[in-house]
Amino acid sequence: MTYPITAQRIVLAARPDGEPTAQDFRQESLALQAPQAGQMLLKTLYLSLDPYMRGRMNDSKSYSPPVQLGETMVGEVVAQVVDSKVEGFNAGDIVLAHSGWTSHGLSNGEGVRKIDPATAPIETRLGVLGMPGFTAYAGLREIGKPRAGETVVVAAASGPVGSLVGQLAQRAGARAVGIAGGVEKCAFVKDVLGFDVVIDHRAEDFVDQLATACPDGIDVYFENVGGPIWQAVFPLLNQFARVPVCGLIADYNGTSTTDAGLSVAGLMRGILTRSITLRGFINYDLNHCFPDFIREIAPAIKNGEIKHLEDVVDGLENSPQTFIGMLKGRNFGKVLIKVADAFR
Amino acid sequence: MTYPITAQRIVLAARPDGEPTAQDFRQESLALQAPQAGQMLLKTLYLSLDPYMRGRMNDSKSYSPPVQLGETMVGEVVAQVVDSKVEGFNAGDIVLAHSGWTSHGLSNGEGVRKIDPATAPIETRLGVLGMPGFTAYAGLREIGKPRAGETVVVAAASGPVGSLVGQLAQRAGARAVGIAGGVEKCAFVKDVLGFDVVIDHRAEDFVDQLATACPDGIDVYFENVGGPIWQAVFPLLNQFARVPVCGLIADYNGTSTTDAGLSVAGLMRGILTRSITLRGFINYDLNHCFPDFIREIAPAIKNGEIKHLEDVVDGLENSPQTFIGMLKGRNFGKVLIKVADAFR
Repeated sequence: MTYPITAQRIVLAARPDGEPTAQDFRQESLALQAPQAGQMLLKTLYLSLDPYMRGRMNDSKSYSPPVQLGETMVGEVVAQVVDSKVEGFNAGDIVLAHSGWTSHGLSNGEGVRKIDPATAPIETRLGVLGMPGFTAYAGLREIGKPRAGETVVVAAASGPVGSLVGQLAQRAGARAVGIAGGVEKCAFVKDVLGFDVVIDHRAEDFVDQLATACPDGIDVYFENVGGPIWQAVFPLLNQFARVPVCGLIADYNGTSTTDAGLSVAGLMRGILTRSITLRGFINYDLNHCFPDFIREIAPAIKNGEIKHLEDVVDGLENSPQTFIGMLKGRNFGKVLIKVADAFR
Repeated sequence: MTYPITAQRIVLAARPDGEPTAQDFRQESLALQAPQAGQMLLKTLYLSLDPYMRGRMNDSKSYSPPVQLGETMVGEVVAQVVDSKVEGFNAGDIVLAHSGWTSHGLSNGEGVRKIDPATAPIETRLGVLGMPGFTAYAGLREIGKPRAGETVVVAAASGPVGSLVGQLAQRAGARAVGIAGGVEKCAFVKDVLGFDVVIDHRAEDFVDQLATACPDGIDVYFENVGGPIWQAVFPLLNQFARVPVCGLIADYNGTSTTDAGLSVAGLMRGILTRSITLRGFINYDLNHCFPDFIREIAPAIKNGEIKHLEDVVDGLENSPQTFIGMLKGRNFGKVLIKVADAFR
């Protein structure tokens, strides 16, 4: 290895007002020196793009601090150790790290976790076997608690969280009703993932279709979108319904028309009279479930019982446009940026 | 006993639009014949007036069916058995029953429970040792789960639910912050009930006072009012806050301005980013806690550790006006109608 090496990274150039645009991001080169004692150099192989990143672009209090202007956009990556002066990590190791939108990163090993490429394809560690999959698993197990014969509804059903929610609901004996946008995604949810029913939220009679698809009401709604879909779901929630709240992608750009029908008073009244539980969570609130998640899900991925789909885009430079499109529902499957090939 | 006896009852005369008025009720006489085999005659001693009754006056789906026009208003009573042909019940027994707003009722014994007058004053079975007290106990134990050092907020703090919520919070080592309306009620909450802080929701700077009273935020908000108080509480809820939703008196008349500040989107965002739990419940959802409730609370009432206040109005004929006033916060303590004296 000859140092310095030139890393590419993408920084937050401006705080978006509503939907982000290309001008809110900037690509920069950065010279990286050789790792010092206690450091290692990581080469990014895959970068995960996830809806939560939109929240980090705002200068407002959330569960995590915002990205500062001029700072590298945050994100989880699968990386390979290039050069290590950190005990326990060797050149060639495949790891999960929070390097962000960058081709290379220096790390002291904190929060970096080695993964075994033999368990499952490495890119699944950012999707069905990673944070999104774990979010589905833990939210259902700890909050949704689907039982045999119940009806579980999830939106963004072709996405990395929704696709697992439906499959896990069915493994618990419940009916899985998926909501997705467009013919192609709906066909995938029904035919490949095997949900019991799928509904296109773009259909004009979406609200009626949802009611028809849930003749016995809804027992679990796994909330990852918010907005008009939440408005349509709420009246159908049964007595004792459980709503894990893990995301609100429709609201992230602050452009949603959520309050069209439902009011706060109406929501509270429904929660009261139907003994409904709403519980917000972030996957790491439920980290105690992680070992069970890997133990149960990894084999089911390997033997094909659990289906998953990745939407892989080549090149770090394409991250901003891909991210912007993802917030509009243009992706199909778990969105990953392939930054580089692994070396042997 | 000479039959027929003439019972007085109050029926629903019209469905109110907003706040109920005297015209929505009508008093009627009814001739009751002697109880047949399997029946008993109950004489009402105390009738409980509770906010949930407002919901039953509407012709809309709720957790219980509405009262029909011309039917006796529903309600729980402490009654005395006058004449019994039901096994296990004898003349003179004191019982809890759902006779409604009536001086006498015929019952087949279903849902009727004998109570021991030696345990506690019989009227407390409709208040601190009855449904309202149990609502406070079960909602805190199963949903609120206050821990030492946490801050618990409850509105209608001088009422039968709120007054126990605060006292139980303190028994768990938490700080109790009460909200009440007017100088007299606030003094009672602070000086008699012993809450750590009390705030008058009629104060112009109520929102600021609430924030000042909760310098470490709010961990548990026991929701029994809704409306503007909920709007003020929500921004102060901490990470992992728990909100048992047991009542929304501010919204029962459908005249609340709940949506002044908070939107559904804002509410959902807060639930997500702060991992908040909202859970609606009706006391009987949590009936498994009832034996513990009686075991723990009855002695604490008897020895004076737990304070309570009843607001007793004489005469069944005064039920409508008392109920209308209660919905406006005019009562002070658990509202009871004294219908008759017990006989020996």
